[in-house]
Amino acid sequence: MRTFSCFGFVVLAALALACGPAQGVRPPSATADPLPSWNDGDARQAILGFVDRVTDPSGPDFVPERERIATFDNDGCLWSEKPVYFQLLFAIDRVKALAPDHPEWRDRQPFKAVLDGDMEALAAAGEHGLLEIVMASHAGMTTAEFEAVVSDWLTTARHPTTGKRYTEMVFEPMLEVLDYLRANGFKTFIVSGGGIDFLRVWAEDAYGIPPEQVVGSSIETAYEVRDGEPVLVRLPEMNFIDDKEGKPVGIHSHIGRRPIAAFGNSDGDFQMLQWTTAGDGARLGVLIHHTDAEREWAYDRDSDVGRLDRGLDEAADRGWVVVDMKQDWQRIYPDEGNLTSD
Amino acid sequence: MRTFSCFGFVVLAALALACGPAQGVRPPSATADPLPSWNDGDARQAILGFVDRVTDPSGPDFVPERERIATFDNDGCLWSEKPVYFQLLFAIDRVKALAPDHPEWRDRQPFKAVLDGDMEALAAAGEHGLLEIVMASHAGMTTAEFEAVVSDWLTTARHPTTGKRYTEMVFEPMLEVLDYLRANGFKTFIVSGGGIDFLRVWAEDAYGIPPEQVVGSSIETAYEVRDGEPVLVRLPEMNFIDDKEGKPVGIHSHIGRRPIAAFGNSDGDFQMLQWTTAGDGARLGVLIHHTDAEREWAYDRDSDVGRLDRGLDEAADRGWVVVDMKQDWQRIYPDEGNLTSD
Repeated sequence: MRTFSCFGFVVLAALALACGPAQGVRPPSATADPLPSWNDGDARQAILGFVDRVTDPSGPDFVPERERIATFDNDGCLWSEKPVYFQLLFAIDRVKALAPDHPEWRDRQPFKAVLDGDMEALAAAGEHGLLEIVMASHAGMTTAEFEAVVSDWLTTARHPTTGKRYTEMVFEPMLEVLDYLRANGFKTFIVSGGGIDFLRVWAEDAYGIPPEQVVGSSIETAYEVRDGEPVLVRLPEMNFIDDKEGKPVGIHSHIGRRPIAAFGNSDGDFQMLQWTTAGDGARLGVLIHHTDAEREWAYDRDSDVGRLDRGLDEAADRGWVVVDMKQDWQRIYPDEGNLTSD
Repeated sequence: MRTFSCFGFVVLAALALACGPAQGVRPPSATADPLPSWNDGDARQAILGFVDRVTDPSGPDFVPERERIATFDNDGCLWSEKPVYFQLLFAIDRVKALAPDHPEWRDRQPFKAVLDGDMEALAAAGEHGLLEIVMASHAGMTTAEFEAVVSDWLTTARHPTTGKRYTEMVFEPMLEVLDYLRANGFKTFIVSGGGIDFLRVWAEDAYGIPPEQVVGSSIETAYEVRDGEPVLVRLPEMNFIDDKEGKPVGIHSHIGRRPIAAFGNSDGDFQMLQWTTAGDGARLGVLIHHTDAEREWAYDRDSDVGRLDRGLDEAADRGWVVVDMKQDWQRIYPDEGNLTSD
């Protein structure tokens, strides 16, 4: 499958839209090591050291529990994002599923491209074409109907190259970080360019992050009473794009205070890390650098999806931690087993 | 002070905007009675019975902790709202404080009306005038600056008739309900037509409700880097009105699941209670009816602020609980002491 070389941000913006249940939160680690899938190195030590400092009530960097807010990007930070954002694969599958009710799509772009599996033609349809796909797949139904559609998709769909369920492609080392932070009094939030309602369907089971702690892009919704039954209807109109400068705005809107720790992987997360680490006191900014072409994917400055360029340039000066997936992570996905020490 | 007879919703809509620290969350009750300020009666029994049912793991109405979401209107539900929404009094005080920097306001409505204390002229300025007051008082500064302004106001301002600090005018019986629900595994949220950022400054200290559990109306914000320092700037443009049909939309946006209990006091809360109580399983909808002209205020169908009309008509059929403040509450404000049983 060809990546969407002409869109980059557009894919994300257009996907700014919607959210299926997954595997179940893992039990707490039985070992003393809170990050067993992490090789010992600067990245692991930076995370452990930060948590020690902000939780030490006698230390100068102590932070009360109610202010221990940590935010996480999703695509490329908590789960994989190749060949394209998984939510776009959902949108494509959804268009195919709806096609029998839309015979006109057979001859009309960008729908024809999707139905023909012609990714070049889909890419050529540009931003407007993509937005049409997203609205056709994410709007025009109630929130309850959308939740059911996403949930069904997640139980049946498989990743085109790994053959895994998408929710099996979450990063084991990041699940450990989430658990470790929560065990130390943090509230963990997703702050994603992806659709808030797409994420909410499965984030609680996959990550232990409840719907009310998911921040993402959204379309408009309207409240209606249909035959005496109140519903929320998803409208084909963008409401909010939670990416780049939008991330601090989304954080303020949903959380209302500045995080003390933020994890991302692309330049779409730059402002979230900037906003987080500019606050007073101890702060943690982490970028996941995709360096493992064998076990996952390797990409950074030239990638359309998950491009990391400015972040790499400025991380050292800003004191941000760059995680080298190949070096720092003993395993990528939960089902792999621990490659070295277990 | 004349109430704003021509606005009603407009006041609320225009206030849909912004949020100072208060007294501190009370310690858990030392008595066995979780609702000591409530007289025993149908309302108290309905609340206790609902909580018993949803927390009994062997009963048919059991609800897992993560789904125990309760939402509360603020103005008239958690604190008083007369003679007008307290946030409007903040806006008026703010305009007065800013006036030395705005000599042109002396001759320009609606600012002249505010500076002259001419509430009739302010009311005559209508929706547009009010919006000007709100934007002048709530926008054009960073989120941190606004927080400081609200915080300062709350420590110094006094209610025009009671002489109390505004945060002393929270309802003791509702503080008990909040504590009682949280002690039973509920997450408590404010869902207010008032400004989300105005509320967040003091809701945690006053109600034990953290910023991330406050839903309200909002103006637009923009992320900027000023002299190397990232800030969020409050813009003079509405973003979202969290009232009437907006309340279920705001709940979906911020919480992402349907509450099982909702508390309100006006027809602005109708849709929130409707959405909440239409869900499956045990549900609780509560309307606070202001019936106590002696200890607080008495108003309902004909009131501009906090009008309750349709709610009174339909509560019985919908199974909603109507709290009669005069009959059901032994005391109104925390500093009153318990009038009967203490």
